[in-house]
Amino acid sequence: MQQDGMDPSDWAEFRADAHRMLEAALDQLEQVRERPWRPVPDVVRESYTVRAEGGDVVDRITRDVLPYHGGNIHPRFWGWVQGTGLAADLISGMAGAAINANVGGRDHGAVYLERAVVDWTRARMGMPESASGVLTAGTSQATVIAFQAARVRVMADLRKRGQQGVRLTAYAGQGVHNATLKALELLGIGADNLRLVPLTDGQIDPAVLAAMLAEDRAAGARPFLLVGTAGTVDLGLFDDLNLLADLAQDEGLWLHVDGAFGAWTRIADDPWRSLSDGIGRADSIAVDFHKWMYVGYDAGLVLIRDEAAHRAAFAARPAYLQGADRGLAGGDPWYCDYGIDLSRGNRALKVWTALEMHGEAAFAASISENCRMAARMGDLVAATPGMALGAPVISNVCVFTARGSLEAQAQSALNSEIAETLQETGEAVFSTTRVDGVVMLRAAITNHRTRAADVEAAIEAVARMADRHEATRCVAAV
Amino acid sequence: MQQDGMDPSDWAEFRADAHRMLEAALDQLEQVRERPWRPVPDVVRESYTVRAEGGDVVDRITRDVLPYHGGNIHPRFWGWVQGTGLAADLISGMAGAAINANVGGRDHGAVYLERAVVDWTRARMGMPESASGVLTAGTSQATVIAFQAARVRVMADLRKRGQQGVRLTAYAGQGVHNATLKALELLGIGADNLRLVPLTDGQIDPAVLAAMLAEDRAAGARPFLLVGTAGTVDLGLFDDLNLLADLAQDEGLWLHVDGAFGAWTRIADDPWRSLSDGIGRADSIAVDFHKWMYVGYDAGLVLIRDEAAHRAAFAARPAYLQGADRGLAGGDPWYCDYGIDLSRGNRALKVWTALEMHGEAAFAASISENCRMAARMGDLVAATPGMALGAPVISNVCVFTARGSLEAQAQSALNSEIAETLQETGEAVFSTTRVDGVVMLRAAITNHRTRAADVEAAIEAVARMADRHEATRCVAAV
Repeated sequence: MQQDGMDPSDWAEFRADAHRMLEAALDQLEQVRERPWRPVPDVVRESYTVRAEGGDVVDRITRDVLPYHGGNIHPRFWGWVQGTGLAADLISGMAGAAINANVGGRDHGAVYLERAVVDWTRARMGMPESASGVLTAGTSQATVIAFQAARVRVMADLRKRGQQGVRLTAYAGQGVHNATLKALELLGIGADNLRLVPLTDGQIDPAVLAAMLAEDRAAGARPFLLVGTAGTVDLGLFDDLNLLADLAQDEGLWLHVDGAFGAWTRIADDPWRSLSDGIGRADSIAVDFHKWMYVGYDAGLVLIRDEAAHRAAFAARPAYLQGADRGLAGGDPWYCDYGIDLSRGNRALKVWTALEMHGEAAFAASISENCRMAARMGDLVAATPGMALGAPVISNVCVFTARGSLEAQAQSALNSEIAETLQETGEAVFSTTRVDGVVMLRAAITNHRTRAADVEAAIEAVARMADRHEATRCVAAV
Repeated sequence: MQQDGMDPSDWAEFRADAHRMLEAALDQLEQVRERPWRPVPDVVRESYTVRAEGGDVVDRITRDVLPYHGGNIHPRFWGWVQGTGLAADLISGMAGAAINANVGGRDHGAVYLERAVVDWTRARMGMPESASGVLTAGTSQATVIAFQAARVRVMADLRKRGQQGVRLTAYAGQGVHNATLKALELLGIGADNLRLVPLTDGQIDPAVLAAMLAEDRAAGARPFLLVGTAGTVDLGLFDDLNLLADLAQDEGLWLHVDGAFGAWTRIADDPWRSLSDGIGRADSIAVDFHKWMYVGYDAGLVLIRDEAAHRAAFAARPAYLQGADRGLAGGDPWYCDYGIDLSRGNRALKVWTALEMHGEAAFAASISENCRMAARMGDLVAATPGMALGAPVISNVCVFTARGSLEAQAQSALNSEIAETLQETGEAVFSTTRVDGVVMLRAAITNHRTRAADVEAAIEAVARMADRHEATRCVAAV
């Protein structure tokens, strides 16, 4: 391709190339059902080296990049908790490239789009208008920001002096996401200072928490943070957020809710909506758009009830970033004063475009439908001889074993084998998790393309593999 | 738009819409010179609310979003340090939407693209093959990751126990970027524990640093980190990185280099290339692609010399994320073990596509040309009566005052007024910074669209405004 500096010198030629790329991208999305994940051949991955001279890129990407997606765009992908992406991402991807916004601050359209997205989410979560928020790569970073705001609230000179001479302790129920641990490690608070509260009937018992707090206080620690979960990653369970809000208030703790996917039950139908009741009472909420709002990776959000606490933890602008009353340097507040990043991509455009194209109601319907699909999977498991649920299906997560009658190690081996084989054959993607020491199959349905027929076919495939395994064992035993 | 769940039910219609969006995006990029930044009208920003029902989005974006870009795509935008974006971002934006990769881990194409981008950058920076790296939103986050690795190296139980009972101190020359301060605050080390070394002839004096270290050690602190800068944000200055590497080695400090934009002098021609000599000797480097490699926001990178130190600071995988020998859960290493984020967008595709389309040589040429343009601006300033440089032009940054003869406050007012007016008229974007207490105009040229005629026109505009101001003052004095 001829170039004028870094711009195409022949725009007509580039336009034609770009339209070809668009057709290839559209083909992939329209035919996604026929294009499951596939391993990257060695020859392809070895070809991903950087070349000194430029050249054709559209055919190259169509041939060597598009086919090797991670599978999460496919209707039968339910591994980990991965969003599916949206056709709307194509629209926002093109517009975003033509804008190239740095949303760290200043006064331009992307800043106002971000305010709109933050404000819409805030309202849906039931936080007051005075709350603040900032888009992040995801819940992990949102958690770091929230915990830092919580820490600065109890240690006003933390930013100046560091965490000297005070041992802060945080509390969460067993099964809390690893993001909480990683954030405490990063901040220099330390994993040992995360106290995991054993669950009673799947929930935190106020008396148990109170006893742990008293013990830690007596030992000289300063409890500062209580973490609740709206949708545990392994089983899709929800803490009683109203109960946690009461506890946090009584004990003077900052309540943070990890709502990475589960927070979106707020816009679902009942009974799923009620799972996240009370979430708006939190001091902070971390939530992703790229999981259960389906938008392209990456886009998360932290909401913080007390904007002053949010700014106290992050606001800082040196001479070369001073704002102005007029011109491009205006536009307070600047988002760089609300988080880690100074340069920030235009995540708001992705979210806003998706909502603008589909409307909020379509997301609400799809989220509810995902929960129905998980329930359907649970029903099929319960009805299939030999299979057993690892836990009740509460929201969009279904965890089960292909053969509940085997001893633990054999179950684990069988379930792992089934997960890997189904991934390799392109039939379906389950991930695995451990329940009471047994590796089980796990589907987290944050996939707007999943239909009942997909769930049925996948459970049939699991049943078929388990039967074949049993037959092989019998033959081996003979 | 009709919908099948969240997918378009009429793909032909959506294809037509998408091609219209592409044309609008291409128009904006091809005609960027005629589309300067403009303020967002109140009625537009107020329209950015989320609607319950979906609808047309292409006309909406074309009318209400594209025009309100932040200006950095324009040839005469030199404010702050903002990249321009590339036509290649349109290609990667479309492909990225059709892939929707989460590059936290697992075994799929985007993981290998990221490895290719990390490895190419590592090689260009002159770090050994054993170094590791991970893409981030930008240098701010890269700095946090690097500092945490540095801290864990000196405090092996930091992740478990937190930073109890040890006062760590860090060192950097005056003028270090605010990202260093923010990272130390976030990590709980504290801003007071960043010791700013006064510069001697623009550089750190080893004797001065040694004295500060001795003093801090005597006071019970544990020095752990030395931060060098390749390209200061205000003046584009470079530390002597070989000198800093020697100092760090002698004193047992981790050497981190903030190379947000300046690190890319590594692929420029001399004399600019030599500015970053020694950068490959650092323990860690933070660098952005969205500034001087021009790719769309956001994309940065941290490189860490000692992969074991990198992993020691971040690696952690609970049961639901256990890898596997086969299938999609394979593919070690997982990038989530190298930084803050578990869910991670496909930044590598943007960088790789740009390099694939243009080739490395085109970037090298454009970076050198930007330095020539800054030098040209400096020459024009020096040749224009009344104007004065605030500092010599070293790389791509030119700082100057429109009227050096005025007293400080009047200069500041005039320069601020000129910056804001030129932004408002759409003629050029300078930002401002303070030099010896005077607000000056500042151009950081990380813009592949800037030509000599742009520089000349902008300096003429500044001269015209300064003359007019003087005339007005004279009239007022009469």
